[in-house]
Amino acid sequence: MLIKNKKAVVLLSGGLDSATVLGMAHGEGFQCYALTFKYGQRHQQEIGAAKRITTFFKVSEHRVVDIDLVGFGVSSLIDLALEVPKDRANLDDSAQIPSTYVPARNTIFLSFALGWAEVLGAFDIFIGVNAMDYSGYPDCRPEFITAFEKTANLATAAAVQGKGRYRIHTPIINMTKREIILTGTKLGVDYSLTHSCYDPDEQGRSCGRCDSCRLRLKGFAEAGFEDPIEYVKK
Amino acid sequence: MLIKNKKAVVLLSGGLDSATVLGMAHGEGFQCYALTFKYGQRHQQEIGAAKRITTFFKVSEHRVVDIDLVGFGVSSLIDLALEVPKDRANLDDSAQIPSTYVPARNTIFLSFALGWAEVLGAFDIFIGVNAMDYSGYPDCRPEFITAFEKTANLATAAAVQGKGRYRIHTPIINMTKREIILTGTKLGVDYSLTHSCYDPDEQGRSCGRCDSCRLRLKGFAEAGFEDPIEYVKK
Repeated sequence: MLIKNKKAVVLLSGGLDSATVLGMAHGEGFQCYALTFKYGQRHQQEIGAAKRITTFFKVSEHRVVDIDLVGFGVSSLIDLALEVPKDRANLDDSAQIPSTYVPARNTIFLSFALGWAEVLGAFDIFIGVNAMDYSGYPDCRPEFITAFEKTANLATAAAVQGKGRYRIHTPIINMTKREIILTGTKLGVDYSLTHSCYDPDEQGRSCGRCDSCRLRLKGFAEAGFEDPIEYVKK
Repeated sequence: MLIKNKKAVVLLSGGLDSATVLGMAHGEGFQCYALTFKYGQRHQQEIGAAKRITTFFKVSEHRVVDIDLVGFGVSSLIDLALEVPKDRANLDDSAQIPSTYVPARNTIFLSFALGWAEVLGAFDIFIGVNAMDYSGYPDCRPEFITAFEKTANLATAAAVQGKGRYRIHTPIINMTKREIILTGTKLGVDYSLTHSCYDPDEQGRSCGRCDSCRLRLKGFAEAGFEDPIEYVKK
């Protein structure tokens, strides 16, 4: 059954996962409000990808919020002085949290999404976290999402006044990359618009060697599709 | 017993409450890292007050983080088109949430504090929320703080790897304004440095009529002290 006239805030990085999640929310009939963060990423390709995806899905509104995480910089994703890890062994080893981890990132992102949702009168927030093929980030696990959802329903006037109950949707949390790509492809997600690489070259081509590229390439291989984006090395 | 060599992140608005909380963390012996947000407040006096207070307490570091809440603007605290409510009846009526409420504000603030704490290797976060004399904000209640603390301990690598447990300290949550002022005065907090008014005049004088001014003036009266700051109307 299609949902009508119901707003949702969708966190959108510009990567494969969040593009699929936007496709899923859109497919369910939500009026989508996309939220992207500019937080001193090493590359701006993600923002460009997010813009292209929102145009593709004709979202109701797209906000790009500038936040100052660079000042806190301990992550190689935002600190140019650190190297993005390449060809890392044990991609699935959750005990080993890589340097691309950004402290409290999803907590910060969900907090902003919650604020915007309350302003919009929306109670549905979509986030493309994934606990299967993930890189060991603690804030991608279901127990974190459940705790945040509970916090959201205590934090806001709309919830406390009984206007609704916030729900954090994580539709791909238990999917493999293969399943994500198969789901998105069925929904018509154009993956050529997305960007996943942590360390693209000057022409914007993906490195093919960081965790993000390798998980993506593995997913496409397993799904039996050709990844439509350009790589330096596949 | 004094705590030695233990870092704490202290949220500091520049108001009376958070200045007292900084005084309390400092008094307990924490190395204090103060965090202030610039989020399109109607007035910049708060930031100036926060700077003066951090100098007074010789904090280890003071960060002022710029965040874009204006785009989400539904609060009269940040939206210049809305009027700050004056001489409001039922100051203590929690069913009536005033227009100065900013959606998800404390969730956003605590998320940033958590990120910085993880970078610093700190596990103690202080916030000056108050559930007694408060203006009906849901994110000032103990149940919200408890839920956020639980979220924090699931969100972060440091907690998941067992390096420590995050604690959100709310030392004034059950104090009246009178008790806060008495506590701060005992600790040597210089309240002439603080700023509480939602709607100061051009010379920076407090209006004396918004919720924040009225709660403050009532607190000083009950504590038996003269409020050292300047008012347009007392």
